[in-house]
Amino acid sequence: MKPIQVGLLGIGTVGSGTFNVLKRNQEEIKRRAGRGIEITMVADLDTERAKAAVGEGVQVVSDARAVIANPDIDIVIELIGGYGIAKQLVMEAIAAGKHVVTANKALLAVHGTEIFEAAQKKGVMVAFEAAVAGGIPIIKALREGLTANSIQWIAGIINGTTNFILSEMRDKGLDFGTVLKEAQRLGYAEADPTFDIEGVDAAHKVTLMSAIAFGIPVQFSKAHVEGITKLAAQDIKYAEQLGYRIKLLGVTKRAKNGIELRVHPSLVPAKRLLANVEGAMNAVVVHGDAVGTTLYYGKGAGSEPTASAVIADLVDITRLHTADSAQRVPHLAFHPNAMNDHLDVLPMREVVTSYYLRLRVADEAGVLAKVTGLLANAGISIDAVLQREADEVGGEGSTQTDLIILTHDTLEGTVDDALAELQALPTVLAPIVRIRKEELS
Amino acid sequence: MKPIQVGLLGIGTVGSGTFNVLKRNQEEIKRRAGRGIEITMVADLDTERAKAAVGEGVQVVSDARAVIANPDIDIVIELIGGYGIAKQLVMEAIAAGKHVVTANKALLAVHGTEIFEAAQKKGVMVAFEAAVAGGIPIIKALREGLTANSIQWIAGIINGTTNFILSEMRDKGLDFGTVLKEAQRLGYAEADPTFDIEGVDAAHKVTLMSAIAFGIPVQFSKAHVEGITKLAAQDIKYAEQLGYRIKLLGVTKRAKNGIELRVHPSLVPAKRLLANVEGAMNAVVVHGDAVGTTLYYGKGAGSEPTASAVIADLVDITRLHTADSAQRVPHLAFHPNAMNDHLDVLPMREVVTSYYLRLRVADEAGVLAKVTGLLANAGISIDAVLQREADEVGGEGSTQTDLIILTHDTLEGTVDDALAELQALPTVLAPIVRIRKEELS
Repeated sequence: MKPIQVGLLGIGTVGSGTFNVLKRNQEEIKRRAGRGIEITMVADLDTERAKAAVGEGVQVVSDARAVIANPDIDIVIELIGGYGIAKQLVMEAIAAGKHVVTANKALLAVHGTEIFEAAQKKGVMVAFEAAVAGGIPIIKALREGLTANSIQWIAGIINGTTNFILSEMRDKGLDFGTVLKEAQRLGYAEADPTFDIEGVDAAHKVTLMSAIAFGIPVQFSKAHVEGITKLAAQDIKYAEQLGYRIKLLGVTKRAKNGIELRVHPSLVPAKRLLANVEGAMNAVVVHGDAVGTTLYYGKGAGSEPTASAVIADLVDITRLHTADSAQRVPHLAFHPNAMNDHLDVLPMREVVTSYYLRLRVADEAGVLAKVTGLLANAGISIDAVLQREADEVGGEGSTQTDLIILTHDTLEGTVDDALAELQALPTVLAPIVRIRKEELS
Repeated sequence: MKPIQVGLLGIGTVGSGTFNVLKRNQEEIKRRAGRGIEITMVADLDTERAKAAVGEGVQVVSDARAVIANPDIDIVIELIGGYGIAKQLVMEAIAAGKHVVTANKALLAVHGTEIFEAAQKKGVMVAFEAAVAGGIPIIKALREGLTANSIQWIAGIINGTTNFILSEMRDKGLDFGTVLKEAQRLGYAEADPTFDIEGVDAAHKVTLMSAIAFGIPVQFSKAHVEGITKLAAQDIKYAEQLGYRIKLLGVTKRAKNGIELRVHPSLVPAKRLLANVEGAMNAVVVHGDAVGTTLYYGKGAGSEPTASAVIADLVDITRLHTADSAQRVPHLAFHPNAMNDHLDVLPMREVVTSYYLRLRVADEAGVLAKVTGLLANAGISIDAVLQREADEVGGEGSTQTDLIILTHDTLEGTVDDALAELQALPTVLAPIVRIRKEELS
């Protein structure tokens, strides 16, 4: 049988990784897929770079639509990124009856509903293993490996840039700004790192996992998105003293009244495997009612790790391109007519989790009693308190100190209100720091 | 469409877990599978127990062949275990055109070639996610998630009983025998724990992973199998001092001249996630040339975790039972006509790894020089040496001490020969302890 023909849109880091791995391992991949898989056409605005990357024998064009229009092409890989032209091209590829493989989390988290609907109608597959956690086959685990389960929650380190920064901040006791510059120098952070450090990239990914886990439509606009730019080295240190590490987590959870969908820095008990995922690595913890806690770890980005996921999708499509829709895995794990349309994403005030609070207070008698009394009145139960000596915090003779409080599970709205009250106390001398805490047990 | 009908052979711990999870999550599973999945018939010698487990509405028989003969049954789940009757029944189910789901690692590691051949010929699927690492979808990850990769090596903690025992030995400084009794009391070890503690169970599982990773036939008889019964608390302590933990690993590796396939206690650097997998948990590290290092963690045994894997297989079969063989995933990842028949499993003497050596030596001048000189002559490069004070080891006035040596990578045969020479030295006073070491980098 002649090889299945693939067209590649955009040959940057991941595109050339995909081309190289597919070529290097072509024999082995063919023996698994039952048929050869070849990239025969590449579109990139920089045709010179593209030609240099693929060498002879592969058609290089600057117009992506020429790839889509090519009747010999069975599968189109979209590696352009963003919501703009990428969306148009994906929709056109679907309309042309091509299967699509994409690593574009932003596109799917925002426009997934429209794209998957079009694909379903046209009878083609849109595969996106590479969109979440790079080479880790987490989409496959969620969609196929854990189908027996009612998934309870997912918590993941799904952005390597921020995990690298947090690891460095902790290791070296440095501030966010200093480490960000270092990360940019080393290539772990982009020149414009906004999507990473503000949590947007992680939110795209957890939005996709949430949809797959709970059978809800992708709803990026309802995700709570909070990055790591305001994290102080001080809080990383205090957390450490209390037995926790701070990680940027994407969390989605099946709660009583709906679905939690949120990205923010979180304290994680240091003894959990997830807390020990360092540097640019990714890991996702999935808790199912039958399987219990499972964890998936690996490189979340990079040329060949991401290519690994892209090619796994190519193999799946090669196997299933002649199958009917009942034989294929539904895009979002649940069949389109069996989604959970009634499960809403909860506003943050309705989320239940636990908290780390740091209060800069006057070092005088009765402050601790006042603060804990106010929390008790609000119904917020305290798990641990760490009070620093004033001169450790502010130097000798200081009249200020830090009061660190860990709470048990509480409704976020209750905490919001209590914090507003606490902030108004004359003995609370600076904005209160509040970081969420996930026990993951 | 009416539900797909499943017959269950053997309703013990995993069987009742499968029945319960399938029932509890039936709606959600149906919405994923596109069709209901129901266990409608159960065979168990203990029909009373079986009836108590499944309640009304499910046919319970004592004769497994009645399930196989039932034309309404599409899929047979084999949860009897062992090589005997289980093999006959699996072969008969295949011959009757039933798809088979099994958790029986022993059966497949030994008779897999015959079973998969028969299934291939008959056009049915034999699925076995539950045979390796319980609820962790590691078979799916290897067969489908990492298809882009030339897998380089796999190292796994794939036996919960032994990992529980090793964790306890380390935590409490206790001997193997003491902890084994405790494990039996707690239900973590069986009354006859031989298969677990001697490494046989782990060897069955790594045999299956090896076949899938490298496209070779299952060859349990060629696996090197070594358990944890001879491990001393002392070595766990020394390893700890050197920055390592001791784990029972199943290892399979693509070497220059063939495939390594081995189960034995191994030192693992304490900083690796794998070293921090504690208690009865399982974890498998897979290193692929494109993806790099990935890790999969979860419960490796137990009623519902194993049921999670069994049901995932049921869902896959439900989707693909009308598919043709090109649309299905090959049993051992590679298409049967594209296996690596020329790749042999290497004898242990040809394995290359590093070593922990403990020598009980006379506490006299020149011993260290003698020992290290002999190793140097053999071409064995030393990574670290730990020499204990004699009175720490043997009490005050002792004339003996422990010499601990970590080597760099060496051919096992070279180490065998050098150890024979060392053992013959008059200053070496007891049998040398040799434990392999895997850096997993």
